Amino acid sequence: VDLIGIDDVRRAAQRIEGKVVRTPLLPTLWGAGDRPLWLKPENLQLIGAFKVRGALNAIGALPDGVRARGIVTHSSGNHGQAVAYAARAFGVKATVVMPDASPVVKMDAVRALGAETVIVPGKLRESTSEALAEEHGYTLIPPYDHDDVIAGQGTIGLEIAADLPEVATVLVPIGGGGVISGVATAIKALLPQAKVIGVEPELAADAAESFRRGELVEWPIEQRYRTIADGVRVGICARTFRHIQARVDDVLTVSEDAIRDAMGVLARRSRIVAEPSGALTAAAYLTRGVELPPGPVAALVSGGNLEPDLLASVLAS
Amino acid sequence: VDLIGIDDVRRAAQRIEGKVVRTPLLPTLWGAGDRPLWLKPENLQLIGAFKVRGALNAIGALPDGVRARGIVTHSSGNHGQAVAYAARAFGVKATVVMPDASPVVKMDAVRALGAETVIVPGKLRESTSEALAEEHGYTLIPPYDHDDVIAGQGTIGLEIAADLPEVATVLVPIGGGGVISGVATAIKALLPQAKVIGVEPELAADAAESFRRGELVEWPIEQRYRTIADGVRVGICARTFRHIQARVDDVLTVSEDAIRDAMGVLARRSRIVAEPSGALTAAAYLTRGVELPPGPVAALVSGGNLEPDLLASVLAS
Repeated sequence: VDLIGIDDVRRAAQRIEGKVVRTPLLPTLWGAGDRPLWLKPENLQLIGAFKVRGALNAIGALPDGVRARGIVTHSSGNHGQAVAYAARAFGVKATVVMPDASPVVKMDAVRALGAETVIVPGKLRESTSEALAEEHGYTLIPPYDHDDVIAGQGTIGLEIAADLPEVATVLVPIGGGGVISGVATAIKALLPQAKVIGVEPELAADAAESFRRGELVEWPIEQRYRTIADGVRVGICARTFRHIQARVDDVLTVSEDAIRDAMGVLARRSRIVAEPSGALTAAAYLTRGVELPPGPVAALVSGGNLEPDLLASVLAS
Repeated sequence: VDLIGIDDVRRAAQRIEGKVVRTPLLPTLWGAGDRPLWLKPENLQLIGAFKVRGALNAIGALPDGVRARGIVTHSSGNHGQAVAYAARAFGVKATVVMPDASPVVKMDAVRALGAETVIVPGKLRESTSEALAEEHGYTLIPPYDHDDVIAGQGTIGLEIAADLPEVATVLVPIGGGGVISGVATAIKALLPQAKVIGVEPELAADAAESFRRGELVEWPIEQRYRTIADGVRVGICARTFRHIQARVDDVLTVSEDAIRDAMGVLARRSRIVAEPSGALTAAAYLTRGVELPPGPVAALVSGGNLEPDLLASVLAS
């Protein structure tokens, strides 16, 4: 079998319990009557994103002796902070290879969590992390193309199922596809009648196109990088596409304007700060809600790391 | 006995369970090493403020026949929405008397929750609500000068004690003094070694002065209204002062600049939107943290209802 199962997600939940914030489902007053909206605010995790779940599970699943040799990853975003945090939680060394174009504030955030950073030209990030893994015996923890990472993100689905068993639709953003693969695994096992629907920016809709065509389609990086939603500019991989094909009911896309508007609504009406990727699901709810099945909707707010100026601009608009 | 007790708070917790968000304690990365900081984000309640706890408990505690006749209150702020929400949750009618100077957006918010609004000149708000109570048999639920309201707010303390039993200091904002009276009741009963410290704006420091002098001091309304923290412009009352004297360890004050700065830190570093009153405790932590005992600190973020322009301005600064 080439898909993870609900038991993998359950084991992940045991591994990470007490090490992550057990986020509540937040009711809202801005949902429509027959589709009441709940938010799963993973921006409230310590590092501001759900990524800590997968990193903790993947590092926690390693044999002690392997883990003790250290961890390496490459990331310009939330996954780097997640690995740094998770490694520290287990008391092992982490090295995060970062593109030299990464914002200094993100490099500093990784260092503040006790990880070593290695700054390289963007195109060398993967080869550098592989070389470091080989040289030092580090274990490479990729951001989504990894069963233990997917199972860790899937714990979000367990929590939604426990807190809102009457949920009709679960909205999940898609970047590399790790979190929707895990969440769909949990939801379909526990609440088979519920729909799991992915959300992408129109400008980085490789998963939507792949889903529709029934085969994995890659979008050129220069296309994907047009969206404001920097957390989902990566493409899905074969592993996550298999999970999406088997367990996801649909993939919707939203405009850049809808993403910005949703960030403002989340801040004003639900008092949480979402990064553009984190606002994708709210954008889908607000602009395409009539296409969803009737019944309660749970929308994953995946993260809240963004430049303060951007947040200020969506509030003023 | 003229103070509420832990049993009152426990009964309140039973009454409101499932009707409020069980907010998590959020760890932070911006706390100092020997005083790690946790946030209790009550801005994530449906109406954006902790007030819903006290309103639900006070309305829930009424005999069925009394409650069925309806509820009345007066408020220009979060308490009005809390009473409207709580009355709707119990299926009874609510009337909220609001000063004619209230922002239209707040009047609309109360109406959207199904309550009737009665708009009067500010100086007539109390007499009007008393007249409505007499005429229609409504029960008046005041914002803080009421034991069941205090007990309801105290459920926040129960949750902090359950989630962080090693807490050394609990920081609570003081306006009318209801929430600190309830929280201190819970904390002192369950964790007698922990300190409960109130926080006020320097510009509305009637509780700090009363605490220091050992007698209830009233500040003129025109002084209290100078602070940006509109949620704490009211003064404490005899009932809440008795609880503060008996159970609160200290009252600190913070500057207006510290409040604004803390709003920005909460949005940027913890991804939550706090109104000025909701940022008081973070402001105290950031500017007066060295005066706190060593050990974990829990800071209550009381609410998140504010004009988007104000939030945008603190993000830009």
